[in-house]
Amino acid sequence: MPELRKDPITGRWVIISTERGKRPTSFAPVPRRADAKMCPFCPGHEDNTPPEILAYRKSGTEPNKPGWTLRVMPNKYPALVVEGTLSRQPAGIYDKMNGIGAHEVIIETSDHAKDLVDMSDEAVRDVFWAYRERMMDLERDRRFQYILVFKNHGEAAGASLEHAHSQLIATPIIPRQVADEIDGAKRYFEFKERCIFCDIVRQEITDRVRVVRDYDAFLAIQPFAPRFPFETWLLPKAHQSSYLELSDSEVMVLAQAIKDSLARLKVALNDPPFNYILHTRPISREHHEYYHWHIEIIPKLTRVAGFEWGSGFYINPTPPEESAAFLRKIDMEELERIEKKPAVGKDA
Amino acid sequence: MPELRKDPITGRWVIISTERGKRPTSFAPVPRRADAKMCPFCPGHEDNTPPEILAYRKSGTEPNKPGWTLRVMPNKYPALVVEGTLSRQPAGIYDKMNGIGAHEVIIETSDHAKDLVDMSDEAVRDVFWAYRERMMDLERDRRFQYILVFKNHGEAAGASLEHAHSQLIATPIIPRQVADEIDGAKRYFEFKERCIFCDIVRQEITDRVRVVRDYDAFLAIQPFAPRFPFETWLLPKAHQSSYLELSDSEVMVLAQAIKDSLARLKVALNDPPFNYILHTRPISREHHEYYHWHIEIIPKLTRVAGFEWGSGFYINPTPPEESAAFLRKIDMEELERIEKKPAVGKDA
Repeated sequence: MPELRKDPITGRWVIISTERGKRPTSFAPVPRRADAKMCPFCPGHEDNTPPEILAYRKSGTEPNKPGWTLRVMPNKYPALVVEGTLSRQPAGIYDKMNGIGAHEVIIETSDHAKDLVDMSDEAVRDVFWAYRERMMDLERDRRFQYILVFKNHGEAAGASLEHAHSQLIATPIIPRQVADEIDGAKRYFEFKERCIFCDIVRQEITDRVRVVRDYDAFLAIQPFAPRFPFETWLLPKAHQSSYLELSDSEVMVLAQAIKDSLARLKVALNDPPFNYILHTRPISREHHEYYHWHIEIIPKLTRVAGFEWGSGFYINPTPPEESAAFLRKIDMEELERIEKKPAVGKDA
Repeated sequence: MPELRKDPITGRWVIISTERGKRPTSFAPVPRRADAKMCPFCPGHEDNTPPEILAYRKSGTEPNKPGWTLRVMPNKYPALVVEGTLSRQPAGIYDKMNGIGAHEVIIETSDHAKDLVDMSDEAVRDVFWAYRERMMDLERDRRFQYILVFKNHGEAAGASLEHAHSQLIATPIIPRQVADEIDGAKRYFEFKERCIFCDIVRQEITDRVRVVRDYDAFLAIQPFAPRFPFETWLLPKAHQSSYLELSDSEVMVLAQAIKDSLARLKVALNDPPFNYILHTRPISREHHEYYHWHIEIIPKLTRVAGFEWGSGFYINPTPPEESAAFLRKIDMEELERIEKKPAVGKDA
């Protein structure tokens, strides 16, 4: 059983995930670049994964058999486990709880060779729709406080399999970074009686220098104080605290916006490894007025990680005004060529 | 001029370091494994670096010439610059200030082939003594709030040159991670009227399971809720809020403790890339009662960085009780063999 432990100084929770079972001798990187014949996420290999929780499939096809275009199942190596009663306990001066949570994998396409940027708008919409479906289901579980959706693309960004997939972790605590955003947004709201994210959207539309693209309902920006070069935020322009407030038609616009944002980064930075993380309101509705959901895309370009981990102090060599100008100018024809040609040089 | 910018939501400051001048096309990793003939940190190449601020050298030798055993100079590519008057400014709803600070490099030895674990106890003591000397000098600068000392070892941990060195950054703000520790330690003190770090030391000595080694004045532990496998903390057992409270004789014990801790990690994990960071009290003395300086050593073993960056939520596959047991059992003879033989397979 994994365990959640709280750092007694900062209050940050970590997962001690014994099920993943890394021992001192097992830290050598394991290359897992599998071709479609070996890939556990490819059609025909459904029995290599736990049974599916959700799938979008051709009518008449059976669960856990080919015929799907998107598939969600529990992670085979879960960081948290779904069975059990949540139990907080002391350990001397320390605090811990058992590692209760959900850890799911969303296989974004049946095509081993495709990424989000190569997929049709409708297929990308289905991915963002599936996030919604799974979040709505898991929000009913009273043990959870937060549902975190994220994608690792490329080995350097932590992806262990190259077949395009996202992950979802439902947790009995609010992740530190989100808690920091909530605290800050709340302080701003108490002072200004306005949502800080809405104010950011307004200022960025006025300033224009950090806007990558305006997608009507959404805005892609390079934030004012980015930790990483080419860090990109995608925000709904109207106030929405939870991702679940997104309307049916907005999901399609979001899919197009994500595809365009990722394609620009792919062209600008030669298909970089990246992570994106969906920051939404915790399951509790109390933060509605001042929290505002958004997606943070972080290309992994620099190696300056270790020092930053220990200090929380980031040195970013690229001003966001420069990266925004660069991304705005990406040749749209080149983007279209990417969409039409089969993916090559995809990293594992 | 670099710029400090504040994230308007979380209040986290970042350095936008334009002087380092990374442009979209310049993110390919640059291998800088230089042999002693080319190394700018080797004796005889003193004119490849800015003039020295401090050096420990044989009597009779001249500044910026060979004859030194340890040398401190400004970083040639500084993240912050030392000249100028600190000026906080608004930028619409945002906040920024000019990038005033000090950024220094401590060359730990004149020997290109040596690391801290290969050096004599006296030479390691000199390194930790030099940190003290530079901190005492920089604390007099009223523009600074914090002095951060850290070491990157190995390319994957962010070291761009393999010749053993540490760095020091004096900043006009308190780094996020330290600020979080101060806030948490203050809350604990208000509740318990005791230092949380002192309580951790007491509990770890009682529990024993997470202790790597007890060095009399210092304790090496695997913390209760580590973010990373084999994350190691070294704490003074008696309450000291600032690194500058360390007595002369304690510096020697600290040097031996650091050497032993790093040697254990080197043997256990096959010379891993690592960072260590010295967390001390901010220059202001107000946090004396509840803050407690310590060194955090973070081996870079896992690739799970990107997602954690975006969530602040860490998944650690190695329980600290297991890594502590492993590190306690490291064969002391093997440690001694390492000390005696020349360094091999050292990574850049």
